[in-house]
Amino acid sequence: MEGEPTLRLRIFDLNCWAIRYLSKRRQERVRLIGDTLRQQGFDLVLLQEVWSEQDYSDLRVKLAGCYPFSHYFRSGVIGSGLCVFSRFPILDMLLYQYSLNGYPYMLQHGDWFCGKSVGLIPGSRAGVGVGVTAPLLSCSLQLHAEYCRDKDAYLPHRLVQAWELAQFIRHTSKAADVVLLGGDLNMHPEDVGIRLLRGWTGLRDAFAEATRFEGCKNGCTLVPDNCFTDKSEMLPFPLGIRIDYILYKATSKFTVKCEELKTTTGPAPGVDIPFSDHEAVMATLHIQRQGQPAGSTRGTADLALVDVMTEARTEVGVGLRAAQQQRYSWGRMAVLALLLLLLQAAAALGTLAGLGAEQPFPKLSFCLLAFLSLGILVLATGLHLFHTMEVKMLHGTEDQMWMALRALQERP
Amino acid sequence: MEGEPTLRLRIFDLNCWAIRYLSKRRQERVRLIGDTLRQQGFDLVLLQEVWSEQDYSDLRVKLAGCYPFSHYFRSGVIGSGLCVFSRFPILDMLLYQYSLNGYPYMLQHGDWFCGKSVGLIPGSRAGVGVGVTAPLLSCSLQLHAEYCRDKDAYLPHRLVQAWELAQFIRHTSKAADVVLLGGDLNMHPEDVGIRLLRGWTGLRDAFAEATRFEGCKNGCTLVPDNCFTDKSEMLPFPLGIRIDYILYKATSKFTVKCEELKTTTGPAPGVDIPFSDHEAVMATLHIQRQGQPAGSTRGTADLALVDVMTEARTEVGVGLRAAQQQRYSWGRMAVLALLLLLLQAAAALGTLAGLGAEQPFPKLSFCLLAFLSLGILVLATGLHLFHTMEVKMLHGTEDQMWMALRALQERP
Repeated sequence: MEGEPTLRLRIFDLNCWAIRYLSKRRQERVRLIGDTLRQQGFDLVLLQEVWSEQDYSDLRVKLAGCYPFSHYFRSGVIGSGLCVFSRFPILDMLLYQYSLNGYPYMLQHGDWFCGKSVGLIPGSRAGVGVGVTAPLLSCSLQLHAEYCRDKDAYLPHRLVQAWELAQFIRHTSKAADVVLLGGDLNMHPEDVGIRLLRGWTGLRDAFAEATRFEGCKNGCTLVPDNCFTDKSEMLPFPLGIRIDYILYKATSKFTVKCEELKTTTGPAPGVDIPFSDHEAVMATLHIQRQGQPAGSTRGTADLALVDVMTEARTEVGVGLRAAQQQRYSWGRMAVLALLLLLLQAAAALGTLAGLGAEQPFPKLSFCLLAFLSLGILVLATGLHLFHTMEVKMLHGTEDQMWMALRALQERP
Repeated sequence: MEGEPTLRLRIFDLNCWAIRYLSKRRQERVRLIGDTLRQQGFDLVLLQEVWSEQDYSDLRVKLAGCYPFSHYFRSGVIGSGLCVFSRFPILDMLLYQYSLNGYPYMLQHGDWFCGKSVGLIPGSRAGVGVGVTAPLLSCSLQLHAEYCRDKDAYLPHRLVQAWELAQFIRHTSKAADVVLLGGDLNMHPEDVGIRLLRGWTGLRDAFAEATRFEGCKNGCTLVPDNCFTDKSEMLPFPLGIRIDYILYKATSKFTVKCEELKTTTGPAPGVDIPFSDHEAVMATLHIQRQGQPAGSTRGTADLALVDVMTEARTEVGVGLRAAQQQRYSWGRMAVLALLLLLLQAAAALGTLAGLGAEQPFPKLSFCLLAFLSLGILVLATGLHLFHTMEVKMLHGTEDQMWMALRALQERP
């Protein structure tokens, strides 16, 4: 095995926080990111939150020399924000948009409008030198943000996303020798979603596996020292949190080792600003063909996975009941608004027929009330339909998890 | 090869047309379908348009003896309508919802509310007898309906769906020895979408490959003789059309042969009604391990595929320009409504400030106009956002097709 050739792969992952008109010093930071990427010469660059296609185009022009291949994933109203730059040819791609991603009426959070997705690039030529014949699969992705850790209303949605992501990876990576995944998972390392993702796919965390580490303490990627982070949000976490990950796995024919993991620590050298409100994660991986395929030690892992899956399913169930409640409430509201409208129509018809002619008809308040009921009817119907879809997806995920649990428990 | 064991697989595919309150004699037909499936004992049953979960539950109870494994795919407001019954264990599944599926405001067509999808079942134990070690992948699916063939406004959406379906199959089937796909593709055999799907995935059409065929002429599945079809819609096609398919492919290690293909021809024996407005398709496949993996003859196929892909990309481009036009129109409408609202606000403030006090303020028409503008503003903004998403997805598909074209042309 010692004699086998090794592929050394350097990966860069960053949530760029490049929201047009909203992110501070965006253009300056995008230029800085471009300059650094050009100097450092990574093999694969996975970026998130590049919401403006213009920023992507600027980066592509700047990086054309050292990363001749790139792709920008379009989805949602604003976009997926995901893009990939690569030294190796990108021959194909697949975008999977999560079926749940927040609520359209939560305008202040805006996740719904982003069409959050996972973008998959099967790059078949990367590992030719070491006999990686089947695709080396790389994904850039982002999951729904967490706005309040104590009362996290989006937890069920994030769990559905983590589940869909895990299923997507399992089903698309069956013929892949090596799978790489980088992105902003918006989950702490001990959260149920990431345990589910790792357990169900077998992906390994580059931070935990790295031989050498350099960067923010505990590998944190959202730190209070960063001048762009919201200090009040970081109060419960004085050291910061780790929510950006590089994960990987290989088939039994290969070994992947993380030689080095780095995070940026605030401003880049020679400038006064960091790349983003997140720190970048950079991994150096060694991929080597194995002489003897390793055996699996699945027994205890399966037991732990059953626990994680049960926990995740319980949370999805909580979300399902909340969604059912919402669906019911908005449906009832729509029915009430419809009744009010019918009542008004009856009153108007009565007046036209000459009933109650002795009193003046209150046209203005009548109109106001009618429009108000109509508005409520439309809004409530729309929200009822939206929550119906939510219920369907949560229910479907709960079912799938149940089936997976059963399959796990039936394993010999 | 002659000595290798053979797996004989009998597949049933039907668009059940089981829409609650709308489909004629629905419950009677679902009972009839259940009875027939129980008697005939297929290996795999792929159903579409089972919109009511109650119908699925009834079928599941009835078929529990002969098809112990089943799954219902939930998505959209109404559901995906897809379900699968199987003699073999269903251990896992994946649902892919197409990113485009008509327009929510086309209530009379209703496709948008269905969450049209492809449901994938990797059933690993089906072919144990013949050494099918990697999953036998089976999909049930439905694409957007065609409401007017001459002016088909949904063609770009259906092409995006066909493309996404092809990509989904390519990426999930890499480790599968055999892939089976059954469903209502809503496309005639010569349509660009089905040529794209078949060319890009290598799937073969059971009707074209079948050694024996029995059923409606040309394998049609929507025929004027069926008492539930709309006779006026079938006028241009006196023999009917073929839009329901069973497609399959195998890796080079296996051969799949379609021994027999059948369609139903109107009412089942002993009853006066057919199963549905579509005819059912039934295939008997023979799966056998091959001694010598067959070589590929890709040269001419690639050339034909380039033509198909170019044609499909042109159609998606046409759809893209139409969507951009719609996005622009609704955006302009929203701006105009906003301007009108601002003007009204200015007029109201002027009146409050005592300007024009000599004339009575027309409260009623003022209120009516304000509500009207507000309604238009909300509606136009919503539609502008919807068409922005449509543009993003069409643009993304166009890009992906371009990349695929380039890869095809660069092949040696």
